[in-house]
Amino acid sequence: MGDYQVTNVQQDAMGAVQLELAANPNALALRRPFDPLAHDLEASFRLTRFADLKGRGCKVPQEVLNKLVEGLQQDYNSTADHEHAHFMHMAIPNSTADHEHAHFMHMAIPRIGIGLDCSVTPLRHGGLCLVQTTDFFYPLVDDPYMMGKIACANVLSDLYAMGVTECDNMLMLLGVSTKMTEKERDVVIPLIMRGFKDSALEAGTSVTGGQTVVNPWCTIGGVASTVCQPNEYIVPDNAVVGDVLVLTKPLGTQVAVNAHQWLDQPERWNRIKLVVSEEDVRKAYHRAMDSMARLNRIASRLMHKYNAHGATDVTGFGLLGHAQTLASHQKNEVSFVIHNLPVIAKMAAVAKACGNMFQLLQGHSAETSGGLLICLPREQAAAYCKDIEKQEGYQAWIIGIVEKGNRTARIIDKPRVIEVPTKE
Amino acid sequence: MGDYQVTNVQQDAMGAVQLELAANPNALALRRPFDPLAHDLEASFRLTRFADLKGRGCKVPQEVLNKLVEGLQQDYNSTADHEHAHFMHMAIPNSTADHEHAHFMHMAIPRIGIGLDCSVTPLRHGGLCLVQTTDFFYPLVDDPYMMGKIACANVLSDLYAMGVTECDNMLMLLGVSTKMTEKERDVVIPLIMRGFKDSALEAGTSVTGGQTVVNPWCTIGGVASTVCQPNEYIVPDNAVVGDVLVLTKPLGTQVAVNAHQWLDQPERWNRIKLVVSEEDVRKAYHRAMDSMARLNRIASRLMHKYNAHGATDVTGFGLLGHAQTLASHQKNEVSFVIHNLPVIAKMAAVAKACGNMFQLLQGHSAETSGGLLICLPREQAAAYCKDIEKQEGYQAWIIGIVEKGNRTARIIDKPRVIEVPTKE
Repeated sequence: MGDYQVTNVQQDAMGAVQLELAANPNALALRRPFDPLAHDLEASFRLTRFADLKGRGCKVPQEVLNKLVEGLQQDYNSTADHEHAHFMHMAIPNSTADHEHAHFMHMAIPRIGIGLDCSVTPLRHGGLCLVQTTDFFYPLVDDPYMMGKIACANVLSDLYAMGVTECDNMLMLLGVSTKMTEKERDVVIPLIMRGFKDSALEAGTSVTGGQTVVNPWCTIGGVASTVCQPNEYIVPDNAVVGDVLVLTKPLGTQVAVNAHQWLDQPERWNRIKLVVSEEDVRKAYHRAMDSMARLNRIASRLMHKYNAHGATDVTGFGLLGHAQTLASHQKNEVSFVIHNLPVIAKMAAVAKACGNMFQLLQGHSAETSGGLLICLPREQAAAYCKDIEKQEGYQAWIIGIVEKGNRTARIIDKPRVIEVPTKE
Repeated sequence: MGDYQVTNVQQDAMGAVQLELAANPNALALRRPFDPLAHDLEASFRLTRFADLKGRGCKVPQEVLNKLVEGLQQDYNSTADHEHAHFMHMAIPNSTADHEHAHFMHMAIPRIGIGLDCSVTPLRHGGLCLVQTTDFFYPLVDDPYMMGKIACANVLSDLYAMGVTECDNMLMLLGVSTKMTEKERDVVIPLIMRGFKDSALEAGTSVTGGQTVVNPWCTIGGVASTVCQPNEYIVPDNAVVGDVLVLTKPLGTQVAVNAHQWLDQPERWNRIKLVVSEEDVRKAYHRAMDSMARLNRIASRLMHKYNAHGATDVTGFGLLGHAQTLASHQKNEVSFVIHNLPVIAKMAAVAKACGNMFQLLQGHSAETSGGLLICLPREQAAAYCKDIEKQEGYQAWIIGIVEKGNRTARIIDKPRVIEVPTKE
């Protein structure tokens, strides 16, 4: 039996945030730093301390995952269970060489989807399919409300990457840290839930359930699902030579959230203080939160308007990791070449000062709830960028081109770094 | 971007299990204890050590959860956002006093579902709805393959409790313990995945995606989704005076898995060795695994055949906890009275020897992937039990009655304990 229950009020924890949010929830929450004291917590309370990733991403490294999953895969391919063969993260019947199975037959053999963003399952009902994704991770900002928003935006982003702009419902997955005091728990968890839910409302959907467990680390994630017609999503395999690559959010979120944590850690701070001021770091951190909490929904909607040939969202494996996966899925013999790296202001310098730690300019720095990386017809890209800026007030950038090639991606030798300032 | 990827083979870890499974996967895997040495692991390897629950269930206690969620709930009720008000685990538009909203209107105001088993979301497409559930927890048996099966059966059970027998797809949620050696990880994780997937196949569905992260504790869970017509599910609110309560699996899984772990812990074992033999504990453990890995699918199918008035599945809050929640959701003024407690053989004695630890006979002992607790018309119950035993070879029991009352549940003073023997 499920586990969400409601009986009695616990309003104290919400008092502070309700005041904060009274006027304009988003603007205020974004601009005012989370103050533990205002919530009756110790001044030293840091949500990010409830997970100990030591700078690692939370994901199991790609090559390890490959190894773990491969045994299953092999097995599928060698059995008679072909109709159940769509194990992987994405299984799109019509994105494959198996074009005889491209018609959403019930339980047709889809290609074993490899590392793309959603699971797509043909349904028993009139041509419909279930598009679904799940994601969860650990706190990377100290503001619980913003953390909830970011987690929600991050889950939804997988749908948006496939051009799916309507989400039918969401489930929330929460791990409450065993190390939290009762007080901390009672303050923080409702704020996270509220952030998650507010982001879902902003996306025109709602959270209809979930699961909450205790866990050493605080865990936040969810599931997003849509039932739609095949024409509502864009199979990300149609890039052609001459297309350009557009990115809709700046890079450097991981660098920014780490640099911000180092403000409290003198030995770490000393390593970067020559290249960046405290004020710069705070600005970058807020820009990062702002960016991570922003939905890729308009970016997704505009993919249809400007005839995108496919997209992915940039998250844990970094810009290049996701670009390579997207490239490997193309029907045509193309490769992606990235020339420009839009980066949150000063974060390229911070990354450089940290040596090999982030590999930001090599394209490997993990992002959370990053932008869409979209293949667009060359003649549409500028209009796409103009339109998104007009609608959202945020810039998008043409960062590379699609050449003839063997389905790989690379960053040129000396990419141009575009410093993306904090929005005032 | 999603995270399941496939490139190259890692077959070693699968070698042993493939041999084991060659003849009859289920029978063999159930009967033969997991042998770490056969998988090239230390003899002392115990999967259950990768979570440190200290006898607690993994769920956040019901009353805490109530408190955490309440703030949100209040807020919903006091805003204009009523059309997005279905936050909780279940939101069934037509299970409520709000019968004016009972027609699956797009985004009607459903009742705030309280602690029932699935989220039910009306869809934009012709009367269909999305029925969905998620669950995850920590290892409670040492056999990774069985752990995968149990996790899958446990997730699906929420659908089955609602009479939904067809699952369209599943996602798998995995946390790989940071404390596992590489070798352990490479052996254990593929086995868990395989168990999960095999159980999904058995249920006529498939795993189309998922998410894998690193986490201090090993975590296993999933998401199950179905798109169906409203007549495919049974709203669990229709019990009437004179109904009887049927339970489809024995209680005592938590007691059995704990007693089994105590075989390795002399100080613990000494507390129960007067009431139970090592052989009894091993048998009970295997019966528990068997039971937890068994799908509630046939039990669910027969709910339709015998006109069930509602059901839930017995999991983390124990028999009485779930009975109370089910009772509280009834349309009619009824109460549930439980007279019989079918318990895995010897586990009642073990529970008693442990004092207040489990509260098994009080109905509070957590179960994992427990049976369905079903309200059936009195004249149908015997036939239901006979039919399920004929189809599955497993007994079900009439354990109580539905009386006039104020939507509560209780266990009578001296309930009859039915000792359920291990299947040979």
